Amino acid sequence: MTEPRCHSFAKREHRHMQLGIVGLGRMGGNIARRLMRAGHQTVVHDRNRDAVTALAGDGAQGVDDLAAMVQALQAPRAVWVMLPAGEPTEQTIAQLADLLEPGDAIIDGGNTFYKDDMRRAAELATRGLHYLDVGTSGGVWGLERGYCMMIGGEREVFERLEPLFAALAPGVGDIPRTHGRSGEPVRAEHGYIHAGPPGAGHYVKMVHNGIEYGLMQAYAEGFDLLRSKGGNELPEDQRFDLNVAEIAEVWRRGSVVTSWLLDLTADALVADPQLAQFSGSVSDSGEGRWTVDAAVEQAVPVPVLSSALFARFRSRQQQGTFGDKVLSAMRLGFGGHVENKRP
Amino acid sequence: MTEPRCHSFAKREHRHMQLGIVGLGRMGGNIARRLMRAGHQTVVHDRNRDAVTALAGDGAQGVDDLAAMVQALQAPRAVWVMLPAGEPTEQTIAQLADLLEPGDAIIDGGNTFYKDDMRRAAELATRGLHYLDVGTSGGVWGLERGYCMMIGGEREVFERLEPLFAALAPGVGDIPRTHGRSGEPVRAEHGYIHAGPPGAGHYVKMVHNGIEYGLMQAYAEGFDLLRSKGGNELPEDQRFDLNVAEIAEVWRRGSVVTSWLLDLTADALVADPQLAQFSGSVSDSGEGRWTVDAAVEQAVPVPVLSSALFARFRSRQQQGTFGDKVLSAMRLGFGGHVENKRP
Amino acid sequence: MTEPRCHSFAKREHRHMQLGIVGLGRMGGNIARRLMRAGHQTVVHDRNRDAVTALAGDGAQGVDDLAAMVQALQAPRAVWVMLPAGEPTEQTIAQLADLLEPGDAIIDGGNTFYKDDMRRAAELATRGLHYLDVGTSGGVWGLERGYCMMIGGEREVFERLEPLFAALAPGVGDIPRTHGRSGEPVRAEHGYIHAGPPGAGHYVKMVHNGIEYGLMQAYAEGFDLLRSKGGNELPEDQRFDLNVAEIAEVWRRGSVVTSWLLDLTADALVADPQLAQFSGSVSDSGEGRWTVDAAVEQAVPVPVLSSALFARFRSRQQQGTFGDKVLSAMRLGFGGHVENKRP
Amino acid sequence: MTEPRCHSFAKREHRHMQLGIVGLGRMGGNIARRLMRAGHQTVVHDRNRDAVTALAGDGAQGVDDLAAMVQALQAPRAVWVMLPAGEPTEQTIAQLADLLEPGDAIIDGGNTFYKDDMRRAAELATRGLHYLDVGTSGGVWGLERGYCMMIGGEREVFERLEPLFAALAPGVGDIPRTHGRSGEPVRAEHGYIHAGPPGAGHYVKMVHNGIEYGLMQAYAEGFDLLRSKGGNELPEDQRFDLNVAEIAEVWRRGSVVTSWLLDLTADALVADPQLAQFSGSVSDSGEGRWTVDAAVEQAVPVPVLSSALFARFRSRQQQGTFGDKVLSAMRLGFGGHVENKRP
Repeated sequence: MTEPRCHSFAKREHRHMQLGIVGLGRMGGNIARRLMRAGHQTVVHDRNRDAVTALAGDGAQGVDDLAAMVQALQAPRAVWVMLPAGEPTEQTIAQLADLLEPGDAIIDGGNTFYKDDMRRAAELATRGLHYLDVGTSGGVWGLERGYCMMIGGEREVFERLEPLFAALAPGVGDIPRTHGRSGEPVRAEHGYIHAGPPGAGHYVKMVHNGIEYGLMQAYAEGFDLLRSKGGNELPEDQRFDLNVAEIAEVWRRGSVVTSWLLDLTADALVADPQLAQFSGSVSDSGEGRWTVDAAVEQAVPVPVLSSALFARFRSRQQQGTFGDKVLSAMRLGFGGHVENKRP
Repeated sequence: MTEPRCHSFAKREHRHMQLGIVGLGRMGGNIARRLMRAGHQTVVHDRNRDAVTALAGDGAQGVDDLAAMVQALQAPRAVWVMLPAGEPTEQTIAQLADLLEPGDAIIDGGNTFYKDDMRRAAELATRGLHYLDVGTSGGVWGLERGYCMMIGGEREVFERLEPLFAALAPGVGDIPRTHGRSGEPVRAEHGYIHAGPPGAGHYVKMVHNGIEYGLMQAYAEGFDLLRSKGGNELPEDQRFDLNVAEIAEVWRRGSVVTSWLLDLTADALVADPQLAQFSGSVSDSGEGRWTVDAAVEQAVPVPVLSSALFARFRSRQQQGTFGDKVLSAMRLGFGGHVENKRP
Repeated sequence: MTEPRCHSFAKREHRHMQLGIVGLGRMGGNIARRLMRAGHQTVVHDRNRDAVTALAGDGAQGVDDLAAMVQALQAPRAVWVMLPAGEPTEQTIAQLADLLEPGDAIIDGGNTFYKDDMRRAAELATRGLHYLDVGTSGGVWGLERGYCMMIGGEREVFERLEPLFAALAPGVGDIPRTHGRSGEPVRAEHGYIHAGPPGAGHYVKMVHNGIEYGLMQAYAEGFDLLRSKGGNELPEDQRFDLNVAEIAEVWRRGSVVTSWLLDLTADALVADPQLAQFSGSVSDSGEGRWTVDAAVEQAVPVPVLSSALFARFRSRQQQGTFGDKVLSAMRLGFGGHVENKRP
Repeated sequence: MTEPRCHSFAKREHRHMQLGIVGLGRMGGNIARRLMRAGHQTVVHDRNRDAVTALAGDGAQGVDDLAAMVQALQAPRAVWVMLPAGEPTEQTIAQLADLLEPGDAIIDGGNTFYKDDMRRAAELATRGLHYLDVGTSGGVWGLERGYCMMIGGEREVFERLEPLFAALAPGVGDIPRTHGRSGEPVRAEHGYIHAGPPGAGHYVKMVHNGIEYGLMQAYAEGFDLLRSKGGNELPEDQRFDLNVAEIAEVWRRGSVVTSWLLDLTADALVADPQLAQFSGSVSDSGEGRWTVDAAVEQAVPVPVLSSALFARFRSRQQQGTFGDKVLSAMRLGFGGHVENKRP
């Protein structure tokens, strides 16, 4: 929380830069496009040649492999890896490390576990290479809205590449200013921060996603309560047949629970208040799990974040759990409750 | 926690008494039998004449209706109502109140909500009638093991009827004595207590059942973890194919998690380690719900007791919840995760 | 979810109307002001004469008691009661019921338990009086932002008084429209809805607050994880000293967890990232509790909403709970862990 | 779940054997004593010479270092390491590995993380050494009651050393037999099992402790509900002044929640129903944490086991959490609730 982090937004972000991008899926492709719109050059690669061709049509320089990418970039180079976390990212970074020169930087923009960042940064440092971990939120909306970025790594490297982050970020926009802030907007108000040393970017992003799980589950339970109020668990004179789409809509207007997630819920409910297309089986990704692991490691009680994760685990066991069968077996044992037997 | 509650077990429990019993289901019938084995007389009634006939064969005096029961009993009378909580119990007590005389007592041995006891006791008192609420644990095993009883109501009435409770209770048996207790065993060591004023018996029983839910869910989750360790959520070299029946058995022997519920689990798992006969849909009863309501009223955090209740609620929604669909809809909205759609 | 609820926003809301308001606290006073700004007349009363005088200065007609208010209003009258839920509201409504005439309407804008609304509406109906329950979100910001309202009661009465609700609501404003909505904005898009029969307004508001608890706790746990990452539960080389104020700020910009509650958190953290002025003891109000009770009644699993409530209960027991002492006592018993003894 | 695991208890357990024991704390010392009572020889070592001397007085052969222990044992040797998990155990095993010969076996009887067992067993195997991991429950009571053991490792090695386990185990005793079991009692009925390959013993013990946490928290919450029923959160006419010591006692007698943990609770409450000596700050150990991590890894919902762990985390933050302060800050922001400020 020292001063330098909060200093006002520097002017250097207007320099035009060059960036290599590996991985042109939905995220990587749009990152390249948003950078080019801001005047930066991109050198792009993907296993899928069609993705490369498409981006070349948008102005990028497409290359066939990582060696060609390194050739096409001027030192000190920067290569953004935007691949699935785990093996794909791990291998690509290992190959880049063999091709790059001291002073070059690798940026991992994926959903990497922050302890992997810490390990990698230490390894790359022994070869004179730099490493930034960028937690990126914004999903499919980033091309237009900009990406919210939490960045870990050496401060000097972050500052060198700052024009890229400034171009990707949403910018100050028309969001009302936080009370108590004044003067030139700081980086956070532009939508990106230098969070700390290697791993800090993905750590903050991990907690962001953990919170996201909790928020989502809070809405989910609330809508369940709205819906079940019309259902037959209750006597007829206790039921209300509530219009969930109207309720989501009205809550968007001046209520305390206003949020972007609520906006998305309102979108979905206006299309189909039954949400009949969904099976109710919900996936989870690494961040939600790592958040709970971090809480366990740090001895922080996270009943809401863990409940949200467990609700997803539970949602995928549509045939009942072994644990639930153990309950039935005990009930049969002590009370003679001959319940729930399969026909 | 005043002295009189802890005084040593009185001798008067050996007097032979007379008790009316309404409701001869599994519990009521066995209560009558256990009382008769101890030399007490019972006058019994049930809507089902066969149940009355069967008990008459065991030595009870069967009667056709409540009026006949009141006639057959000597004042001051005591009638034990052993019916499902709610309307059946409510109506029977109303009818008895019209038939009984001042000084008589009604005992509710069912699973009544304790605030209903408080209301009833106050109403009956205006008519000179007494009321005891008896929380009874023991289920199908009570005839042989005895019933554990938590009793609310006026102390004098409790003491007058104590020989009945003493006969129903398990007695001191061969259970090792609690460290620090000495002298003549107190009532609690015989298996029954006077818990307090009207409602206190069922309140204590309610909490007992709330705890029971929590204990059961703790075992259920543990056995889920044992079972899932062999499952395909894990890479093959991380799996253990554990024998849950053997594990339940070994934990019965000197481990910290030894309990009667574990004994029952061991019984079930030795019969079928898959528990294939159970669907995984688990019922709940009033006590588990009232426990959570009481916690809310008393501002006591009960994360375990509520989680156990919610796990049962969840187990019955095998088609997925509306809340889970809301989660999927949000995920589609912000991330383009086209997951889990129904075919 | 029938058509009439969704019909486009009617023109009649522009009629000027007259409203009695009882209770001129922060909410009631601002409601009066916002109505007067829109050209409506108000007749106001409060036990506190200064509050009446202040509002009279803003153009309201101040009265000394409820009888005078009823006199000052033209039939069919409408009186908005904006008092603490429970006795104050209950008594005021009882007094009004004695003063009003058939066809008049009482509006309860407070935080009443929805089953109390159902009871009251039925009682008042026997006297020819109407009753609307208005769940109101917006708090101290409502005068400027408008109030988000969820309204229960007879549709005809709601429609008669709709110009008042339209004036209090935020209106369409500059909030981006929900995808899939087109044509004339419906009521919900103006910030108020007719939720259903008596009680439905407060039921929806109750669930709103339940969700609010869950959202707040999700953020709270996340910020705990950010903060504890710099703390001494971890070895030094595992710590990050994160800037929570900057993180809250950056998440406001294009991230998935953007919300009004996050805005408020950012306000607070920029003022003091330690939040040193707060003791950590957090209050709760009726709605959070009733939400859990409703979930229990409707057999809906609400692990997140209940965890959020229990976290508040727990926060107020800063001396440790009896339950925690029971844990220590058991640990001493089975493991000889002589922990945590008081000096 | 294949046949050999369930075969009846072999006769070979009566052979007398020789065992090295490193670590003569409460557990290690009593293990040595129980083995010697059964006629086995022990060679013992501890950093603390007094502990060695004391055991020598009980018949053990004391040695000054690991080299002397290896000398004193006949091949194939077996050395039981009973030290704190982590570094002490890790280092001792590393030293032993350098001293022992192919065919010898190391037994880790501590509370090791099961993945560490898997790693160690693989490493030792490359040197021809065997490794057994023994999860041991029984605590301070084990010398008299016997130890409940869950053992992982190669079956042949387990069987070679089985007489030691048989001597340490409680044996069949007078525990009622599980329904459905007949014939010669299997190992589990004697109180030990071969759970599976390396790590399986500690995995099962870890789940055992996870369950233990859940059971304990269930009782803790229940007793909180009993106690708070007499407290001033409730209006006076709703309070019961319950005798928690008597309630714990009566539940030991024929109730569904009967368990050893309840026995311990009854012991503590009879000594002091206020438990005034305890601060309410409760420790946790590795197993409770690893259980939650395992659940996350295996996608098993464990709301009860995690809640129990989080309750302990929370109990240690007696000054309030940062998260709770975040809640207060939000409440101040949206509702003007000026709560809980420090004076």
